[in-house]
Amino acid sequence: MIKYVDIYDKDKVNDECGVFGVYKDSSDDFNIASLTREALYGLQHRGQVSAGITVNNNENFTTVKEFGMVSEVFNDKAIDKLGDGNIAVGHVRYSAHESLDRAANQPLVMRYIAGSLAIASNGAITNFAEIRQQLEHGGAIFQSNSNVEIMSYVIATERCTTDDLETAVLFAMDKLEGAYSAVLCGPSRLIGFRDKNGFRPLCIGKLNNSYIITSESCVIDSLGGEFLRDVEPGEMVVIDETGFHSYKSRIKAYNTSMCIFEYVYVARPDSVIDGVSVHNARFKAGELLYNEHPIDADMVCGVPDSGIIAAQGYAKASGIPYGTGFVKNKYIGRTVGTGKDKKKRLLKTRLTALKANVSGKRIIIVDDSIVRGETANHIVKLLRDAGAKEVHMLISSPPFVCPCYFGMDIHNKESLIANRFSQEEICNKIGADSLGYLSVSGLNQIAEGADVGFCNGCFTGEYPAEIPRTIFVDKFAKKINKK
Amino acid sequence: MIKYVDIYDKDKVNDECGVFGVYKDSSDDFNIASLTREALYGLQHRGQVSAGITVNNNENFTTVKEFGMVSEVFNDKAIDKLGDGNIAVGHVRYSAHESLDRAANQPLVMRYIAGSLAIASNGAITNFAEIRQQLEHGGAIFQSNSNVEIMSYVIATERCTTDDLETAVLFAMDKLEGAYSAVLCGPSRLIGFRDKNGFRPLCIGKLNNSYIITSESCVIDSLGGEFLRDVEPGEMVVIDETGFHSYKSRIKAYNTSMCIFEYVYVARPDSVIDGVSVHNARFKAGELLYNEHPIDADMVCGVPDSGIIAAQGYAKASGIPYGTGFVKNKYIGRTVGTGKDKKKRLLKTRLTALKANVSGKRIIIVDDSIVRGETANHIVKLLRDAGAKEVHMLISSPPFVCPCYFGMDIHNKESLIANRFSQEEICNKIGADSLGYLSVSGLNQIAEGADVGFCNGCFTGEYPAEIPRTIFVDKFAKKINKK
Amino acid sequence: MIKYVDIYDKDKVNDECGVFGVYKDSSDDFNIASLTREALYGLQHRGQVSAGITVNNNENFTTVKEFGMVSEVFNDKAIDKLGDGNIAVGHVRYSAHESLDRAANQPLVMRYIAGSLAIASNGAITNFAEIRQQLEHGGAIFQSNSNVEIMSYVIATERCTTDDLETAVLFAMDKLEGAYSAVLCGPSRLIGFRDKNGFRPLCIGKLNNSYIITSESCVIDSLGGEFLRDVEPGEMVVIDETGFHSYKSRIKAYNTSMCIFEYVYVARPDSVIDGVSVHNARFKAGELLYNEHPIDADMVCGVPDSGIIAAQGYAKASGIPYGTGFVKNKYIGRTVGTGKDKKKRLLKTRLTALKANVSGKRIIIVDDSIVRGETANHIVKLLRDAGAKEVHMLISSPPFVCPCYFGMDIHNKESLIANRFSQEEICNKIGADSLGYLSVSGLNQIAEGADVGFCNGCFTGEYPAEIPRTIFVDKFAKKINKK
Amino acid sequence: MIKYVDIYDKDKVNDECGVFGVYKDSSDDFNIASLTREALYGLQHRGQVSAGITVNNNENFTTVKEFGMVSEVFNDKAIDKLGDGNIAVGHVRYSAHESLDRAANQPLVMRYIAGSLAIASNGAITNFAEIRQQLEHGGAIFQSNSNVEIMSYVIATERCTTDDLETAVLFAMDKLEGAYSAVLCGPSRLIGFRDKNGFRPLCIGKLNNSYIITSESCVIDSLGGEFLRDVEPGEMVVIDETGFHSYKSRIKAYNTSMCIFEYVYVARPDSVIDGVSVHNARFKAGELLYNEHPIDADMVCGVPDSGIIAAQGYAKASGIPYGTGFVKNKYIGRTVGTGKDKKKRLLKTRLTALKANVSGKRIIIVDDSIVRGETANHIVKLLRDAGAKEVHMLISSPPFVCPCYFGMDIHNKESLIANRFSQEEICNKIGADSLGYLSVSGLNQIAEGADVGFCNGCFTGEYPAEIPRTIFVDKFAKKINKK
Repeated sequence: MIKYVDIYDKDKVNDECGVFGVYKDSSDDFNIASLTREALYGLQHRGQVSAGITVNNNENFTTVKEFGMVSEVFNDKAIDKLGDGNIAVGHVRYSAHESLDRAANQPLVMRYIAGSLAIASNGAITNFAEIRQQLEHGGAIFQSNSNVEIMSYVIATERCTTDDLETAVLFAMDKLEGAYSAVLCGPSRLIGFRDKNGFRPLCIGKLNNSYIITSESCVIDSLGGEFLRDVEPGEMVVIDETGFHSYKSRIKAYNTSMCIFEYVYVARPDSVIDGVSVHNARFKAGELLYNEHPIDADMVCGVPDSGIIAAQGYAKASGIPYGTGFVKNKYIGRTVGTGKDKKKRLLKTRLTALKANVSGKRIIIVDDSIVRGETANHIVKLLRDAGAKEVHMLISSPPFVCPCYFGMDIHNKESLIANRFSQEEICNKIGADSLGYLSVSGLNQIAEGADVGFCNGCFTGEYPAEIPRTIFVDKFAKKINKK
Repeated sequence: MIKYVDIYDKDKVNDECGVFGVYKDSSDDFNIASLTREALYGLQHRGQVSAGITVNNNENFTTVKEFGMVSEVFNDKAIDKLGDGNIAVGHVRYSAHESLDRAANQPLVMRYIAGSLAIASNGAITNFAEIRQQLEHGGAIFQSNSNVEIMSYVIATERCTTDDLETAVLFAMDKLEGAYSAVLCGPSRLIGFRDKNGFRPLCIGKLNNSYIITSESCVIDSLGGEFLRDVEPGEMVVIDETGFHSYKSRIKAYNTSMCIFEYVYVARPDSVIDGVSVHNARFKAGELLYNEHPIDADMVCGVPDSGIIAAQGYAKASGIPYGTGFVKNKYIGRTVGTGKDKKKRLLKTRLTALKANVSGKRIIIVDDSIVRGETANHIVKLLRDAGAKEVHMLISSPPFVCPCYFGMDIHNKESLIANRFSQEEICNKIGADSLGYLSVSGLNQIAEGADVGFCNGCFTGEYPAEIPRTIFVDKFAKKINKK
Repeated sequence: MIKYVDIYDKDKVNDECGVFGVYKDSSDDFNIASLTREALYGLQHRGQVSAGITVNNNENFTTVKEFGMVSEVFNDKAIDKLGDGNIAVGHVRYSAHESLDRAANQPLVMRYIAGSLAIASNGAITNFAEIRQQLEHGGAIFQSNSNVEIMSYVIATERCTTDDLETAVLFAMDKLEGAYSAVLCGPSRLIGFRDKNGFRPLCIGKLNNSYIITSESCVIDSLGGEFLRDVEPGEMVVIDETGFHSYKSRIKAYNTSMCIFEYVYVARPDSVIDGVSVHNARFKAGELLYNEHPIDADMVCGVPDSGIIAAQGYAKASGIPYGTGFVKNKYIGRTVGTGKDKKKRLLKTRLTALKANVSGKRIIIVDDSIVRGETANHIVKLLRDAGAKEVHMLISSPPFVCPCYFGMDIHNKESLIANRFSQEEICNKIGADSLGYLSVSGLNQIAEGADVGFCNGCFTGEYPAEIPRTIFVDKFAKKINKK
Repeated sequence: MIKYVDIYDKDKVNDECGVFGVYKDSSDDFNIASLTREALYGLQHRGQVSAGITVNNNENFTTVKEFGMVSEVFNDKAIDKLGDGNIAVGHVRYSAHESLDRAANQPLVMRYIAGSLAIASNGAITNFAEIRQQLEHGGAIFQSNSNVEIMSYVIATERCTTDDLETAVLFAMDKLEGAYSAVLCGPSRLIGFRDKNGFRPLCIGKLNNSYIITSESCVIDSLGGEFLRDVEPGEMVVIDETGFHSYKSRIKAYNTSMCIFEYVYVARPDSVIDGVSVHNARFKAGELLYNEHPIDADMVCGVPDSGIIAAQGYAKASGIPYGTGFVKNKYIGRTVGTGKDKKKRLLKTRLTALKANVSGKRIIIVDDSIVRGETANHIVKLLRDAGAKEVHMLISSPPFVCPCYFGMDIHNKESLIANRFSQEEICNKIGADSLGYLSVSGLNQIAEGADVGFCNGCFTGEYPAEIPRTIFVDKFAKKINKK
């Protein structure tokens, strides 16, 4: 029943997402549903497929979750429905899959031996197939293929043989392999926990006397709160009426390994992750890019929005003026996560080159990555059509050569352009005068001084933890025993 | 952890509903989603809260379910999304509860040890609390408090230790007490099963070479199919590529006991249940009502729509002309199942008395039941305002005196008007010149000749099966062990 | 530029509709928007395409109008938006046209020389083309092809040369030919007016101290009000702070001519129009039908809903028992006004024959009319499939042979089955054992004693007023002078 | 009946908007509805209240217009409904008014003496009250208080006495005073016209062989077309099957006067208006700001998005590094045009200061304008909370001191902060270390070399054309003659 595979599984829903939890102190007087909505606005860049909030009001759980952006799901009527309470968790979901399963929307609210739980998670469980198979053999039923349903089950199972929820979660962390940064709302406590490698960010803040646990520190800032610290890899933090508590998982990773692509692209520049500012990491990537690829030009531009800061770093290091090369139509949504055809159509009108600033100049254009090469090709063409004399494209990360098993939606090897073409061929395909990537050794320096190590598996194929040995295929059971 | 109670539990979702399943023969060429929508239109009177369809297309399950009427949930876009397939199940849900849990909408689709299942059920599991507690002690998690999730779990558990789905369902039927008429779509078969008492109807039909299993025979007629027979109490029927199979549950009920109120009110008059026409049962109730309450009057009217046929029976037996006394505004929805305030407001404009036909006459008005007395009072007032000289109200069933534990939403003892006032007091409260109910012995004759016995527990307090010993209170675990 | 035609114009929007107006006395305390919504529920049978309400609150006009049923357009949010006020008008719109013009939804609110006006009308202006052409030559612009926009313009034009709104409306009535029953809300008064022939109904009621003007008396009853009288043909009634006033148009019709088909089909049976109960007229049609077509049978049924009462009349006259032959699925909308394909699909599941009551019997089935013959054919087939031994179809009106120019959506000659086939051929086509229509002389007796004469033009081709001499074709101007 | 006022009228709907028209050559093969949607995306910054498109397909006009963003109104279903055609016009509407009149959404489609017309306009008619009064005295009716309905009427009136549409529009331009840049789709031609002062931009482009007329040149670029030239003040351009034609209005303005605030804030930076790049004008404003306010600091930032380019200009002129100071949450809509409370709430989470880049630095922050001062205060506070040592605020335009009568939503004198407080007081209120505005003489240089003169009335009170002499108050007629 086990099948070894080297491609990324399509039947499994990834949990690349943003999470948020708040434990409201009785001395504070904000509305908890409204606050959580504001927080999810600050996490929206991590997932635009669905949004959800669960409010715990004296052990009564109310949930609103639906496909759509935060602004669509959480109108004032939804906030009224959620009401107020003392604990809340929220989630924004990313999905690269065409067909979307409503049952995988989060928070997942479940009732089990010890009451109710609401969980919101970001990551990917690498021993998903093994755990699920084991649970199914015990009679379990599943309403989705989501990581979070598996996590819930493992916690519920552990809870049957432990004295309290904290122990159950710690034991569950021993069993769950892979990447996860999760928040959990129990009957009377808020829990946050992060896998032992620390693949995804998770941090703690304070808003007056209330505690916040969330994916990125920018959320704490935008709510006017105070950043306390990151949840450490392998740590579980608990907030209840007796205050803040920290527990460590018994099993440690050999090395911690935060996803370095969070700094390059995923996170917001105003977040600080594991001790390093995302803005500064991107700026430094730009400076290092100049060290590796010094080019003579009249202006450095960034591709909006993710290439802007690295371009400013390059400009500073090189002394070449930074300028605005493109206008982005902010009324057309982010392309990532939408259908391919729509992507092309939107690409056309989303960016226009700023002719008046580009015409007649030798341009260096900086972007964070190249996936399929279509966007890069379009951008070079826009600049040439606008009269640029030369167009040099620089990428603030190395080429993608391997899939990610720890929560990023990076495609299988065959679809990655860097596995199919040489750098020179890619340069020709996108039509640039030159093309340069940041080297892996350069990448490793962008977040120097961080409290954690890094995973750069998608650039190197060297993964800091075991990748899935078994691929979960939803239908296999039916094939062999289908009555 | 167990609490004995005598009131009906508010935390538990009832499954008074309509179910439908179809196994499409390869020689037939209808669209299975479209056909199931048509079928659900024919079951809409059994539940207006939510509607759902699951289509199995070569083991790929697609589901659309949502709050709302069939016409709202299943626009053409939804039907397109469902596509075609070889097996489908559908469900309409009734709910008397104010706050509605989306996770209880059906069909429930689950994945378990042997693939995927979609279940749609009508009824109430009376040992719900015991089963749930037992499952929770084994680490199970629940996403709703619905009967159907419990049923799914029990089937999944049985499947772990049996050879095929049929055996698992049969074993599950041994464990599940109470009322249930359910359809189940497995990877390659359609299964229908009915509790051993046969509390709720379930029947089998044929459409060309395809098989249908559904709550009421009217659906088979409206689709142009052929009625075959009822599923017997305690029977499981299976349709797969080898044809039609029937199995009997090992445990038999002492007596079968179809809900007699299905004949009085719930079912559609063009359905035939367990060998007796609903129309004929209602007509006979009217005739018996005349035997018990012969009244001298100028015209017999029925309260639209459920009192119409009994009124015609009374008219025939008495020789008093039948006439139309009310016009019902068909653009205002059925009041059952909506909020109390809305109910009052709608009551006002939904019916108007037909003055021209009522004025100056002595009127007998027939209705199926009195719950709180508000509607009856309103109806008598309408007739008097329209100039009726006398108004005699006759009810084609006995007074409700006990709750129903087997799937009808009949209220706790305190809220039933017949437990709080004498018949004379009720007559005064509603303002009628006289009031008469059909006696229990009369009621027992309305469906004479049926293939089953009847449950009249709500009228007598004598239940044909054990009522719940334990009340399920969702929060109890939290109270004693709330971490 | 003028084109004489004998078919009904497709470019022109008909105003077959329901209208309602209320002038709220300061001593009353209902919410005017809410009351108007209740009233529109009672008129919904006259139009299901769009619904609209305008509330005048001290000369501030607020309007909500949209495509959809009353229940869809007027949720509580819409009612809140409308707020309260002292005058309101409401409208439900019927339309047989596939492509629907939003700008023709009513009430039409306009601002002109003397402030604001909101008009809601039911009918058809027969000199539409001439008036519109004349206005266009004066520089007028039109945002729709609706009758009501023309009516508004004529009133506005008259107002420029008269002293008050009443005079302007009276003068406009002189110019507007055809059928119209309209309500109009001016800055400080409510006006109702009815064309001199009285083609469409319009009546006056009182609710406590407030006045109501509406299409049908059933609305007044359902609101708990008191019916005062009909607006007379050629009469304008005005309610303002000084009370109720009546004015007569200077020009009188040779004979008044209420549409007799209102009694047969359009109006609700609990309405009384021009002194005759709609229920009684239908019952009498059934009795007359027996006189003209005495048939030996076992049961008389009506096609729900419009044939029910005539069937009861036939039953009484003949002594043959009346019985229920069909169950109508009330969850599927009225077919009139929907697309052809949808019509067919709905037809299939909307009605089912009540086998238990029909099988083995000789059935007389009564309906109000035959348009294309498809429904009749379907009904006969349903009865035969249910085991009826004989099926005799009787129609409570004569065959349609001519179009209606006065507000009914009756088709052009070619599409009317009675113009294409003999009665015998139609009987064969629908598969009945016999077919009988009520004669024109019978029809003329159904509403004997009414205060008005009748139009039966669609059955006879004899129209009581001039039919349109010119056909309005929206595009003609473009064709000859298209710059 | 005429009332002289000095404040801006609240009953009148302004037409600050974006317009687009296309005449498709038979040799081109794009879908005209789809193309117009893409164009409206590029104009969305000019209006987010409603969006509309009218397609003319061989003189059949189809319109979709609704409240909402382009992405909300124009889903694929709407585009399908519009179909294809040879001429189309589109519109996005801005409105500062709380209560929104649906009837003012554009394009306005009307039928008149010479067929159908669809008009979309941007601007404000200053003799609105006089023209409307005159038309009402002629019997005209109005369904909104919009400028575009008045414009339509004037064109229709002129058309009655002229030979063709072109002449009618030219004559209408003589009568219509104020600001307007409009596109008009007649039966067989596309017309664009711009008031004699040229207050609002309007330009002409070519897409293959098809012609485009639109508010901003960035739209032409984003569609991949070629910019031809601006429509000149007082010019009417016509495209029909014989090609492109230009006509001049008989009456000339003393001086042309494009709104200079279009360069400062309204237009997109990649547009070129009347010969000057908006980007370059803003960059120059930044340079001039340095000349007028040289400040010693560590970093220059712009308030996203409108202050970014001026900040880059300041950085270049001063040599101080440009850096990113803020992260803007792109998932929260533009605040302009939303309710006041919502504005405050959104302000809170929309921007966060980039601590890592700001902390410990002396910051110059550049914005385009200060209206009420709330945003400026918030921005200064964000920088200080993020650790900025000094915060100097510079504004790339002079203080607003007067209302705009020509299409900008600039408030009455009392609400403008610069009329209530001195510059020093404002600096204190917003909490900055210093505050500087660009001077009027500086402003006059930002678009040097343009083909037109400028209006800077809102900064100086010196208007280049007559301001409204009469204020239109919708209710005046009712007050004096209210029957």
